[in-house]
Amino acid sequence: MRYKDFSALTTVARLTGLARHPYDLTRPEALSPARLQSCKSSACGFDLLYATERLDDEVLAALQALADEAELVEQFMSMKRGAVLNRIEGFASEERQVLHTASRDIFTEQPHYPEATDKAKKELEKLRLFLEDLASGTLVNANGEPFTTLVQVGIGGSDLGPRALSLALQAYTLPGREARFIANVDPDDTAAILDGLDLGRSLFVIVSKSGTTLETLTNEELVRTALVRAGLEPKEHLLAVTGQGSPMDDSSRYLASFYMYDYIGGRYSATSMVGALTLGFILGYEALLEILRGAWEMDVVGEQTDIRKNLPLLMALIGVWNRNFLGCTTCAILPYSQALSRFPAHLQQCDMESNGKSVTRQGHAVEWKTGPIIWGEPGTNGQHAFYQLIHQGTEIVPVEFIGFRRNQRGLDIEVGQTSSQQKLVANMLAQSLALAQGKEDANPARRFPGNRPNLVLIAEQLTPYQMGALLALYEHRIAFQGFCWNINSFDQEGVQLGKVLATKLLHLLANRDKSAPAQVRTSTVEEALLQEAGML
Amino acid sequence: MRYKDFSALTTVARLTGLARHPYDLTRPEALSPARLQSCKSSACGFDLLYATERLDDEVLAALQALADEAELVEQFMSMKRGAVLNRIEGFASEERQVLHTASRDIFTEQPHYPEATDKAKKELEKLRLFLEDLASGTLVNANGEPFTTLVQVGIGGSDLGPRALSLALQAYTLPGREARFIANVDPDDTAAILDGLDLGRSLFVIVSKSGTTLETLTNEELVRTALVRAGLEPKEHLLAVTGQGSPMDDSSRYLASFYMYDYIGGRYSATSMVGALTLGFILGYEALLEILRGAWEMDVVGEQTDIRKNLPLLMALIGVWNRNFLGCTTCAILPYSQALSRFPAHLQQCDMESNGKSVTRQGHAVEWKTGPIIWGEPGTNGQHAFYQLIHQGTEIVPVEFIGFRRNQRGLDIEVGQTSSQQKLVANMLAQSLALAQGKEDANPARRFPGNRPNLVLIAEQLTPYQMGALLALYEHRIAFQGFCWNINSFDQEGVQLGKVLATKLLHLLANRDKSAPAQVRTSTVEEALLQEAGML
Repeated sequence: MRYKDFSALTTVARLTGLARHPYDLTRPEALSPARLQSCKSSACGFDLLYATERLDDEVLAALQALADEAELVEQFMSMKRGAVLNRIEGFASEERQVLHTASRDIFTEQPHYPEATDKAKKELEKLRLFLEDLASGTLVNANGEPFTTLVQVGIGGSDLGPRALSLALQAYTLPGREARFIANVDPDDTAAILDGLDLGRSLFVIVSKSGTTLETLTNEELVRTALVRAGLEPKEHLLAVTGQGSPMDDSSRYLASFYMYDYIGGRYSATSMVGALTLGFILGYEALLEILRGAWEMDVVGEQTDIRKNLPLLMALIGVWNRNFLGCTTCAILPYSQALSRFPAHLQQCDMESNGKSVTRQGHAVEWKTGPIIWGEPGTNGQHAFYQLIHQGTEIVPVEFIGFRRNQRGLDIEVGQTSSQQKLVANMLAQSLALAQGKEDANPARRFPGNRPNLVLIAEQLTPYQMGALLALYEHRIAFQGFCWNINSFDQEGVQLGKVLATKLLHLLANRDKSAPAQVRTSTVEEALLQEAGML
Repeated sequence: MRYKDFSALTTVARLTGLARHPYDLTRPEALSPARLQSCKSSACGFDLLYATERLDDEVLAALQALADEAELVEQFMSMKRGAVLNRIEGFASEERQVLHTASRDIFTEQPHYPEATDKAKKELEKLRLFLEDLASGTLVNANGEPFTTLVQVGIGGSDLGPRALSLALQAYTLPGREARFIANVDPDDTAAILDGLDLGRSLFVIVSKSGTTLETLTNEELVRTALVRAGLEPKEHLLAVTGQGSPMDDSSRYLASFYMYDYIGGRYSATSMVGALTLGFILGYEALLEILRGAWEMDVVGEQTDIRKNLPLLMALIGVWNRNFLGCTTCAILPYSQALSRFPAHLQQCDMESNGKSVTRQGHAVEWKTGPIIWGEPGTNGQHAFYQLIHQGTEIVPVEFIGFRRNQRGLDIEVGQTSSQQKLVANMLAQSLALAQGKEDANPARRFPGNRPNLVLIAEQLTPYQMGALLALYEHRIAFQGFCWNINSFDQEGVQLGKVLATKLLHLLANRDKSAPAQVRTSTVEEALLQEAGML
């Protein structure tokens, strides 16, 4: 397949024309019941309501043509089948396959890339036995007590996804189990988590593909020191999730090792052992499988060529419409579910690290906008905070609402004839309408311009299955956009320069006593910066 | 004082000219030690390093002229002295004073607005006695046990600031005390917090100025129900922070009431009783005073007319330079301190609710950009996530780094001759350099364009005093920008339409059984939306 530049697609010119007069949501009757009904797509328990986007049938047809012309579904299929998509033609790059879907392609007899799925199944079986040993009391601490807490030590992709999902599904936690997370090299992060932890009944999962991540190894040392101080044997409390053969794949130092593979990028690793170990510990193996099943079913949805049936593709194209044709620079993800409070942070990483790029897959500078800035906090909280700007500010912020008809836990209350859950959903839908329709007012401060594009994703309840489907929905939305923009969504070269400079600064700090007093030397920029910051 | 439109300021034209050739940070020697030294301002323990912004002496002089021409400091002084700044000329508006500074103007014999400061002192004295009663064992639960947990029930400004500060200062918590927070109308939020709480030893602070906030009252009912079910008397566990005379100012239903006043907006209320009660409970009265002292000292710094001495004003002007002249739409606030993990969320509300406006104080449509989108997460975590886009994406994101030379807790470790805290700060400074300087590379994917403006705020340690100063620094940065853009930063008309529509939808939900089957009626848009969302 020959990848085409975004600007070279004939449908891009067509869409540019259509964007001169986008659908006006503020006209009377602009949001008819018929439009609400027709602008709706459903899959894996989710209904996607997009009548409040600034598009009509003509734009949808053009977006379908864009998907076809750019061969987005073909690219998605080739990803699933193991093509080396993580590369830049003609330049040194990671040259890797992109196979996070293989880690859940376990519910069919014909997986797309059997070799990776076989490996995933092997790790899952190891995990199943490990969890069984914990449950049966075969695997206990030195005093014969069961482990109650699992602390995941990782950063970036080894932290955000597992953390967001653990929090999202906390309502389903097995009795006597909990998960905690350490990520930051800030020593106060580790101290705050270790504070009050029953170390003897805690397991620590150290997660690093290379086995060399600075933050994670430093925090591992802090954990080992704390265990030793408490008179415990670190090896009996530490687990490794790492690449096979990495420095961390060492049975003399870890109770067990689970493997991750270089064809699964960190930000797409929540359904690999990076997330599975912790999620399995708190939710049990069956619930973990439900997460994988939800993700897998959405993986299958992503194969549809009709954009109205392919939820991730449709969301990707709506995003492209807002980004490239309506000129929006950010996208807010606003879950009306406190359980999803850290899901926007996970998507922020997944999306911005994937699509915050300026180079095509042929190594040319892009001449079009790529990934937007992704941000968000749960509603209704946000309504009492930043929504002011979304309604009346000078920037247009496309919004993606996520909600559920039923809550997770039993507790609810009726006040004024409606339950809290109904209030929650009613507020979400009201915001969707308000942003779209706006409102005229003789008082200029009370005028709402409207035409603020948004969509609503709603499902029955945030279950493990639904969480898996939601995760995969966004993973594929991101991948489809990257394909469309002709960028490599799977590398992260942008993290390197900061690492190099940090090493340089740390070298200066480590050697500061050995050198002459700063004031008598000609400073480099790095030395001067450390001095001005009061570090030298 | 006659407020001038931003576009009518003569210095705006001058700055527009200067913005055609902003300072090039990628040139060799662009970041000399001399520049690093000269682009530094200090106050209240903070050093502000801004050599990595795209400005030079000429731009700084023009920004000084802008501040003078727009009379920004005069407006700030009039705010402190009780001018009715929360208004739109000629139109119905809140018509209120803006006196959050009065709540900490308690360290001088000559407060700027004595009436409000006297009221603040009275509430502080009530609080001091209340905390004393808790400490001495005079105020205990029905079983004679001390209260250990304070749960703050509020939303928006009654939640984000107090939550961010409590978390920031958790390391200083008194033994046996903890704070928790309930905000969302999502019933799962309350359920998750109540789950595992020792209700008998918990106090609940219900915070609502009007005493009518939907979310807060609903959650109060959930709390009352839980207390009754546990055989406890709600009145003995509930405290009110509310306006004097509001429906919640009722000693038959609350153990005690503390007052908030309509001249302190929710998002500026962290140093009023809205934050003071919870912070005083977990940190003690003396530490609370230290927070206020830090804020007060920064309030005084804000009076300086020299922008190099006025940290909040300088940051405001740098922000205006990036927003209005270099065209940036967002601003990332990235604390290298896990303790500040929720501070960006507080600032997101404080800034976007204040300055996400499109109408001048004379009721005209603005013809210039106002408040940017504020977002952020702690470093180093973000380095493994969204920094990719900041370094190499197609949007320029101005960054504000916040760091501390020492950590809060004792625990730290040396790995490779440097401590974790040194690694943390070194990473922050390295990112600042990397974003500014960039790096050429023959491999286009490894090229860093640089010229990404950023600044660094660094102090010795995140203490209560430093937290107070940081809070006020940002409060005033926001106010100065609002003054500059000639908007009313103190109302929030943009929240109203969503409320109206939510009420409409809830009315439909409450009455759904009474009406005819949906399919036989002509649907309104609201009914149709509820139907498509599966709620009817």
